[in-house]
Amino acid sequence: MSLTRESCLALDAADPLRGFRDRFHLPPGVIYLDGNSLGPLPRDTPARVARLVEQEWGQGLIRSWNTAGWIDAPARLGDKIARLIGASPGEVLVADSTTVNLFKLLAGALALRPGRGTILSVEDNFPTDLYIADGLGRMLDGRARLRLVAPDAVEGAIDADTAVVMLTEIDYRTGRRFDMKRITAAAHQAGALALWDLAHSAGALPVDLAGSAADLAVGCGYKYLNGGPGAPAFLFVARRLQAEWRQPLTGWLGHDRPFDFAVDYRGAAGIRQNLVGTPPMLSLAALEAGVDLMLEADLSAIRVKSMALGDLFIALVDQELPATGLSLAAPRDAARRGSQVSLRHPEGYAIVQALIARGVIGDFRAPDIARFGFGPLYTSHADIWDAVAALRAVMAAAAWGDERFRRRAAVT
Amino acid sequence: MSLTRESCLALDAADPLRGFRDRFHLPPGVIYLDGNSLGPLPRDTPARVARLVEQEWGQGLIRSWNTAGWIDAPARLGDKIARLIGASPGEVLVADSTTVNLFKLLAGALALRPGRGTILSVEDNFPTDLYIADGLGRMLDGRARLRLVAPDAVEGAIDADTAVVMLTEIDYRTGRRFDMKRITAAAHQAGALALWDLAHSAGALPVDLAGSAADLAVGCGYKYLNGGPGAPAFLFVARRLQAEWRQPLTGWLGHDRPFDFAVDYRGAAGIRQNLVGTPPMLSLAALEAGVDLMLEADLSAIRVKSMALGDLFIALVDQELPATGLSLAAPRDAARRGSQVSLRHPEGYAIVQALIARGVIGDFRAPDIARFGFGPLYTSHADIWDAVAALRAVMAAAAWGDERFRRRAAVT
Repeated sequence: MSLTRESCLALDAADPLRGFRDRFHLPPGVIYLDGNSLGPLPRDTPARVARLVEQEWGQGLIRSWNTAGWIDAPARLGDKIARLIGASPGEVLVADSTTVNLFKLLAGALALRPGRGTILSVEDNFPTDLYIADGLGRMLDGRARLRLVAPDAVEGAIDADTAVVMLTEIDYRTGRRFDMKRITAAAHQAGALALWDLAHSAGALPVDLAGSAADLAVGCGYKYLNGGPGAPAFLFVARRLQAEWRQPLTGWLGHDRPFDFAVDYRGAAGIRQNLVGTPPMLSLAALEAGVDLMLEADLSAIRVKSMALGDLFIALVDQELPATGLSLAAPRDAARRGSQVSLRHPEGYAIVQALIARGVIGDFRAPDIARFGFGPLYTSHADIWDAVAALRAVMAAAAWGDERFRRRAAVT
Repeated sequence: MSLTRESCLALDAADPLRGFRDRFHLPPGVIYLDGNSLGPLPRDTPARVARLVEQEWGQGLIRSWNTAGWIDAPARLGDKIARLIGASPGEVLVADSTTVNLFKLLAGALALRPGRGTILSVEDNFPTDLYIADGLGRMLDGRARLRLVAPDAVEGAIDADTAVVMLTEIDYRTGRRFDMKRITAAAHQAGALALWDLAHSAGALPVDLAGSAADLAVGCGYKYLNGGPGAPAFLFVARRLQAEWRQPLTGWLGHDRPFDFAVDYRGAAGIRQNLVGTPPMLSLAALEAGVDLMLEADLSAIRVKSMALGDLFIALVDQELPATGLSLAAPRDAARRGSQVSLRHPEGYAIVQALIARGVIGDFRAPDIARFGFGPLYTSHADIWDAVAALRAVMAAAAWGDERFRRRAAVT
């Protein structure tokens, strides 16, 4: 029996998360399937940001570091995110960008594994993860080096020189999911640490850092946590590693007693040692609004709906778009997939642009991936129907051949 | 002839910058002399932030990286700040925190001076500058080390092992100003580089990086630039150094072509190589509003008024507060002072708290410094009179002995 728009509407009517869609500002005429690049604006966020700007900054001025809880925000927000990723209070901190946090954690991991110099990862990892590991290796004059293998070869490649295995749980292009628990166990068996990038996991599916015995993690605030453009990132250091933990970005707010203004650095006990400079409070306020909204939802319901949206998208592509040259780049098995579906086509860039012109916003990832992300709190089943219908129209009209859609902008 | 409140009001009436005071939100009942810790809220800022949140993020979504100019913001804002610090377009970038930027610049400086291992600074430097230099040295396993000397001994201490002289132009406690041009020349004569921390300079006085032949600089967005709590910081790399420049925090946005998602890192030409992760756009929007306001003012008028406010404060302390145990910690010569005056007293902490209880907000810096900062765009001469009058009342009543004022909060 074929799928119809009516059957999609029926799925929406039965969706236990349907009430969350109205908690977001979604512009009319837009089907937004790019929340894995920048999550949409929660309706509560503008007032939260305005309160920080007008009341806390404008009225409270410098006093708000104490009275409005600014100084505690990185750890408070870290504790909230911990609930989304299977971590405990005191194991997560909001700070800096994902890239800067990767530098801290990789350097800290190398210090915990003296005599080992390999950072093991995969070519498909997000480039910034690879770049920062490479930069760290160069800085250490060869004491550390990045080694890249194929995704299926990771477990077999962990050896006695591996200090840390660094992987992104969900591949940013294909949505393929690594088995965090199994790879972490393999790393531990070889005496290595496991560092997980949760950029496409946190808020998209339940992450179980504790159950996976993960050592270290980083993640992104502006994708599924809906924290706003360039929202601060987070980092996780398992409590069992914290006593011996040392990272090189020793800034004043990571000092045990920053307001003593002592000449010598003494790192704070616990996760706070990973704080560096003064946190950008406006951006933290928006992130906190996004995280608070996410905490209202049930993560297992999010995962169930996310898998259903992906399965529906794939089924509709199969049904509506046979023989168009589009091929599935994502795993068919929802359990092995994050909250996105990717399609390959040599004209992927122009196809994505033609879709955007019709109000369906996905994104393109080089060389040939059209990527569609699903935010289970706001994406409906009817959105999926409408997006595939737009894709069918683009392919039928060969709209991607239109010269307008073939010019590349700075950000795609 | 003694100074009176009326003479202060007459100075305000003749102040060419007096129109700027109304461009800030200053809470009633508060005299704010802590803009050197957190500048007050410009009146234009809430609307600028709301536009970014509600229009650019809420309506534009991911498209705003191109259409709203987000992707260019770090360099665009850097070019604006360049005009305040005597730099050229393409030499300044807004990114990360001051501390993270110091790490990039110190590591980059060491790479430009192979065979030299000394980072030379002073004990009085702001702690985060010392901590990050120390952390870098430890990370490099002794290939670099921080050496601290007395402020007057800096020039004599520069030697053949000095890779970089790292100083904060204006001492955060005393307001003492280093001679940037003379010390930079001494560094160059010995083959070393000069890195200047402009945290208490940018927006407070005209900085002449080009005229001083400075090599590198960092600075803060949330003090005299009025960019809001934890506003992003900036960094400067002189154009003549950029061709060979390499810094270790190699993130995707510093790549020559970030949206190629290439496996190998290739740093962008020019200042953009120093970008690491995705910038926190809400905080950048607020910073841009603060910088735009600052650019409306004449920097030499700012300096003239700043010196006059400091001289007035010192004259009033002399006149109104003889024999109270308060001593001047700042240079009497305005030319050798930043836009602040500091007083020493063994009970400095409690005195500052008693002043805050009376609506006069300055701050305390360990061990014994009561610090009063002047924002020439919004601080009036009458503010100075009223602040000193409040200080006289506190000292006369020995109000600092009050138990309420002696407890230390987390942030002071």
